Amino acid sequence: MAKQQEEEVILLNYWASMFGMRVRIALAEKGVSYEYKEQDLINKSQLLLETNPVHKKVPVLIHNGNPVCESSIIVEYIDEVWNDKAPLFPDDAYAKAHAKFWADFIDKKLYQSGRNLYTKKGDEHEVSRKEFIDCLKLLEGELGDKTYFGGEMFSYLDLSLIPFHSWFQVYEIYGNLNLENECPKLIAWAKRCVENKESVSNTLPDMSKVFGLAQSRRKRFGLEE
Amino acid sequence: MAKQQEEEVILLNYWASMFGMRVRIALAEKGVSYEYKEQDLINKSQLLLETNPVHKKVPVLIHNGNPVCESSIIVEYIDEVWNDKAPLFPDDAYAKAHAKFWADFIDKKLYQSGRNLYTKKGDEHEVSRKEFIDCLKLLEGELGDKTYFGGEMFSYLDLSLIPFHSWFQVYEIYGNLNLENECPKLIAWAKRCVENKESVSNTLPDMSKVFGLAQSRRKRFGLEE
Repeated sequence: MAKQQEEEVILLNYWASMFGMRVRIALAEKGVSYEYKEQDLINKSQLLLETNPVHKKVPVLIHNGNPVCESSIIVEYIDEVWNDKAPLFPDDAYAKAHAKFWADFIDKKLYQSGRNLYTKKGDEHEVSRKEFIDCLKLLEGELGDKTYFGGEMFSYLDLSLIPFHSWFQVYEIYGNLNLENECPKLIAWAKRCVENKESVSNTLPDMSKVFGLAQSRRKRFGLEE
Repeated sequence: MAKQQEEEVILLNYWASMFGMRVRIALAEKGVSYEYKEQDLINKSQLLLETNPVHKKVPVLIHNGNPVCESSIIVEYIDEVWNDKAPLFPDDAYAKAHAKFWADFIDKKLYQSGRNLYTKKGDEHEVSRKEFIDCLKLLEGELGDKTYFGGEMFSYLDLSLIPFHSWFQVYEIYGNLNLENECPKLIAWAKRCVENKESVSNTLPDMSKVFGLAQSRRKRFGLEE
C-alpha cells in the first residue's frame, strides 16, 4: 500500500472520448485513484500540448510525471504496472494477440465508420452505414455465446468496445439503425457490462448527453440548423 | 530444444512489405525457423483469405495452426512466445509504452505520407512531402545520439522503422528529397542497423528492386508511362 500512496496518477481526458473511457475503466478495474483533468479540445491546455506534443490528443495518463499516450498503449501500461489485481489480458500469448487484434480492428474500422454516421452525408454516409453494421456483426461473431469476449471474465476487448455503447443513440438516430435488431447478442453483452461492472457504469456518460454533443457538432459542421 | 522441433511456423508475406520485414527481422532475432510463403496480392490465396479474413493482408504468422495478424501484434507475440533470447522490449513498463508509442506513430503517420510520395501528385504530394520529413525529424529527435532507439541494444522500435530503409530510394526520387541532408543521424542509424545486424541485412530487399516495384505501380496508377 505504501507504493500506492507515493504514486501520482493524472488523467487528461474529455468526457465523451471513447478512448478516454477505456482508460477510466481500466483504472477503475485496478482500483487506482487518480486526478482527473477535463480538457478543452478547442483551446488545448499547455499540459496537454506538453505531454502529447505529437498527437495533441486525449487521453494522456501521467504517471509519476511520465506521460503515456494512445489508449491501447495506456491500457497495456496500466495492466503491466498495476499487475496485482484484475488482469486485463489472458496469460496465453495467442489469446492475448487475438484480443489485441480485435481492439485494433475497432480503432481502424469501427471508430471512423461510426463517426461518419453523424458527420457525413450522401454516399459517404451510406457506405459508412454498411461498414459500421458489418463491423458490429464481425464483433458479434467474435463474441458468440460467451458472457464476455474473453469468456467469463470482463477484460481488454470488452473495455475496448464498451465505450461505444454511450454513442449508440447517436449511431441509431443519425445512422437510421436499430442496433438491437442488427446485433441482439452484442446489445445483450453491452447491457451485461453496464449492469454487472461498476467500472463501466461509473465511467460511461449518459447517452442523452452524448447525443447533445453530437447534435452541437452537427450544427457546427453545418449539417443541422 | 524439443519444443522448437515440434513447432510449425509459417509466414505469409509479400517481399516488399515493410510490415512483413518487421516480422522476418523479429523471427531472425529469435532464431526461429519458418516456412516462407510469398503471396500474390492481386490474386489472393485461399490460405491468406482464410487466415486473415478481416483485412486480407500480409503479413500473417501461422503458429501451430493459429494465425496472428497485424505486424505489431505479431512482433509482440513472437517476443512473448520465444522469450528465451533477444528480448525485443525493455523490462521497464514506461520504456516499453514509449517504444510502442513511436512504432504506432510510424504506422499512423510515416507510412501513409511515405506512400503518397510515389502515388500522389500536386498539393497532396507536397503536403505529404512536408509531413514525411517532419515525421522523420521527430523520429531522429527520439533517436538522439543513441546507438539504437532503446540504447545499446537493437530492439522493437528499431525493427519497426528499419524496413523503411529499403524504400528510401523511392522516397528520395519521387519525393525529391535528400534524406542524408534532412536527417543525417537517422541515416547513420539505418547504416548501423544494416551493417551490424544480420537479421536486418538478410531481410531487407535491394533498394533497386523496391524502386522497380514503385515504378511499375506508378505506371499502373497512370502516374508514369
